[in-house]
Amino acid sequence: MKKSKSREISRPTAERLTEYLLILEQHLSCGNETISSKELSDVFGNTPSQVRQDLFQLENTGRIRHGYNVKTLTMAIRNRLGLGNITNLAIIGCGKLGSAIAEHVPFSVYGIKLAGIFDNHKSIIGKKVGGIMVENVKDLEKSLRKRKISIATLCVPPSAAQEVADKLVSAGGVRGILNYTQKRLKVPDNIVVRDRQIVCSFMQLAFFSNQGV
Amino acid sequence: MKKSKSREISRPTAERLTEYLLILEQHLSCGNETISSKELSDVFGNTPSQVRQDLFQLENTGRIRHGYNVKTLTMAIRNRLGLGNITNLAIIGCGKLGSAIAEHVPFSVYGIKLAGIFDNHKSIIGKKVGGIMVENVKDLEKSLRKRKISIATLCVPPSAAQEVADKLVSAGGVRGILNYTQKRLKVPDNIVVRDRQIVCSFMQLAFFSNQGV
Repeated sequence: MKKSKSREISRPTAERLTEYLLILEQHLSCGNETISSKELSDVFGNTPSQVRQDLFQLENTGRIRHGYNVKTLTMAIRNRLGLGNITNLAIIGCGKLGSAIAEHVPFSVYGIKLAGIFDNHKSIIGKKVGGIMVENVKDLEKSLRKRKISIATLCVPPSAAQEVADKLVSAGGVRGILNYTQKRLKVPDNIVVRDRQIVCSFMQLAFFSNQGV
Repeated sequence: MKKSKSREISRPTAERLTEYLLILEQHLSCGNETISSKELSDVFGNTPSQVRQDLFQLENTGRIRHGYNVKTLTMAIRNRLGLGNITNLAIIGCGKLGSAIAEHVPFSVYGIKLAGIFDNHKSIIGKKVGGIMVENVKDLEKSLRKRKISIATLCVPPSAAQEVADKLVSAGGVRGILNYTQKRLKVPDNIVVRDRQIVCSFMQLAFFSNQGV
């Protein structure tokens, strides 16, 4: 019986779990005690059976007759995603996007510590953004090692993306990169890269709103 | 035989098509003439068979013996997503995230026209961002109607999100909202809302880099 609970989670399932978590936390903050798989599925346009299949991979989901206990399920997802462990993050590029992310994304709630911000513009180096001081990107590799940074996000111009990615790799320790640039990165197989091209979300929105889906 | 090509595309398929499109365009710019379903699948961690299933829903994919013709497949996806039609977009909230989106997202390449930016801060109203003048959010409903804006993105503080969403609805014409705020919106069923909570991407990255997936 335990077999299904201990196996690795697929990428799409893990992605959906993070989304379920945010919905659950909104329900928690509204004081709702239970939630149905239908309510969770509605938000993404997937099916209640997909939701149940995703949640079946967790320990102690708080499943009840017509749904789930919100608090128990929230804890189950947080545990499965390992949010109790702290992961140190660096933001490279402190322009508008980088500083918006530093200032507005609630990292600490989800086990992530913003441990470094880097830029190459003198006008911003030394200033505080998102509570920490912006450092010169020349010191990137040294600082990454010193602070045990394991994930990084690239908010630099596309022309600088590969060069920065190479430094992230050579520093050692960085295992994941969230790439907001238009540039596809070449990195060794043991580094996880996720491309986040904002324009995709807009294309999808235009498509569905034109279809009336 | 035509049946599968003319049916509606599911949300996950349409989302993957936008991602395939960006990869194809990178291959185009590198001068590559062909691409395999394996190459397309590698980027997302899905399977070549999933890619083929997605692409089967298109007309004239340029399928060849060991893959697809990049140029033909690019056109097929652009056609299926309706990128030849112009969709007018408004950005509400011209802080760091709103202005980063206005200035750096290549909307026009994908059939989207940035037709309005709105804020409530006097210091920014009247300034040019992303090539157009920031307007007072008080004029939102009037401007949305005048410019036939059909999709909008919310980059406002969470506390203002529902109020702005209500205005988008009451103006009429807006059919889709991309919500970058932490607030879940209540809108009529005929309006498409997509929540984009940046923190999810970071949670996923932390999870996978910790797992070494």
